[in-house]
Amino acid sequence: MPHHRGFTDQFRDQFQDLLKWRRDVRRFKPEPLPAGLLEEILALTRFAPSVGLSEPWRFVRITQPEIRAEIRSDFEAANAQALAGYSGEQAALYAHLKLAGLDSAPVHLAVFTDRATVQGSRLGCHTMPEMLEYSTVAAVTTLWLAARTHGVGMGWVSILHPEKVNAILSLPAEWHLVAYLCIGYPEQESTVPELEQAGWEHRREKVPLLER
Amino acid sequence: MPHHRGFTDQFRDQFQDLLKWRRDVRRFKPEPLPAGLLEEILALTRFAPSVGLSEPWRFVRITQPEIRAEIRSDFEAANAQALAGYSGEQAALYAHLKLAGLDSAPVHLAVFTDRATVQGSRLGCHTMPEMLEYSTVAAVTTLWLAARTHGVGMGWVSILHPEKVNAILSLPAEWHLVAYLCIGYPEQESTVPELEQAGWEHRREKVPLLER
Repeated sequence: MPHHRGFTDQFRDQFQDLLKWRRDVRRFKPEPLPAGLLEEILALTRFAPSVGLSEPWRFVRITQPEIRAEIRSDFEAANAQALAGYSGEQAALYAHLKLAGLDSAPVHLAVFTDRATVQGSRLGCHTMPEMLEYSTVAAVTTLWLAARTHGVGMGWVSILHPEKVNAILSLPAEWHLVAYLCIGYPEQESTVPELEQAGWEHRREKVPLLER
Repeated sequence: MPHHRGFTDQFRDQFQDLLKWRRDVRRFKPEPLPAGLLEEILALTRFAPSVGLSEPWRFVRITQPEIRAEIRSDFEAANAQALAGYSGEQAALYAHLKLAGLDSAPVHLAVFTDRATVQGSRLGCHTMPEMLEYSTVAAVTTLWLAARTHGVGMGWVSILHPEKVNAILSLPAEWHLVAYLCIGYPEQESTVPELEQAGWEHRREKVPLLER
């Protein structure tokens, strides 16, 4: 095995840039990704951490227009329900937010956790079974950063009914939806989150750290 | 705002190295982190994605020896329970695995999701409330990579009883334990996961990708 590689200040600066440019993208250019690029960035999820080396993540690429339309329709239903939970100015603001790039993103990728997997033999899952889902989230985060190193943006759509998505995609109930991802080249580039630009919420200045 | 920065092939290669060197570390050198380094890497979690910009992650640094001892004791109890669920060769193998660096890690960091947070106003959480926990996992993944850019290793301990950890740390029930992290300089350096070295599990060669 090679020795541990030290990382330079220059790399750390660029890594910080990568974190800043990784944004939740909802506005995509229609142009497709170059052939093989999705597979290249997906391959990097092999290096994501997973509990007990269970690698519980399962990816499903959705290309059929009629299936995309059904997903889009479920998003609209879930979004209308969410809107109904707000009132006054907040409802008006919510109604104007662009919350998904389902129409324009060239790649739709649904990500599941296989709760029935035997890989890893449940190590680390006895008191925290949710570690399987957390492993999948780590893979999604890895994918997000890997995509951005190629200038590719990603948006995570959570305004969906998970069981409905399983039904639309004809997937077993043990596959638990973790993320529905829109992937493509961003229409606009900014390091400021869209929700901050739109006045929905602001990021904190400091990270909360308690002592015990 | 600055324009979008392109990333170079060299950066992408180094980023891939970073993913490979990010390992779950369970054997730490006793030397402390340099003053301010933990705060520096923690600050990078501000750039992690969070649903609705909710930033629900809360960090707790544990330094008091008696509190660390109580955590250690809960780990032992949870680990004994987990061991009891295996039999034969697998039980023998499990018993010999080193599953936490609680004794030697200079930094213990517990990470919670504040389920009662109002930040983000529940945007994106109506049909998938677990998005709050997933946001915290994205912050932990970010922290893991940020630490490694400084040669610092991290191990995620999930063999604990979450409610017990809240009780030990005197934290409210709405703070939901997502991760208990051991952080410090690794005793050994390897890109091969410890569980693979120990013969517990192997990583797949390919990432599963279905089409719909």
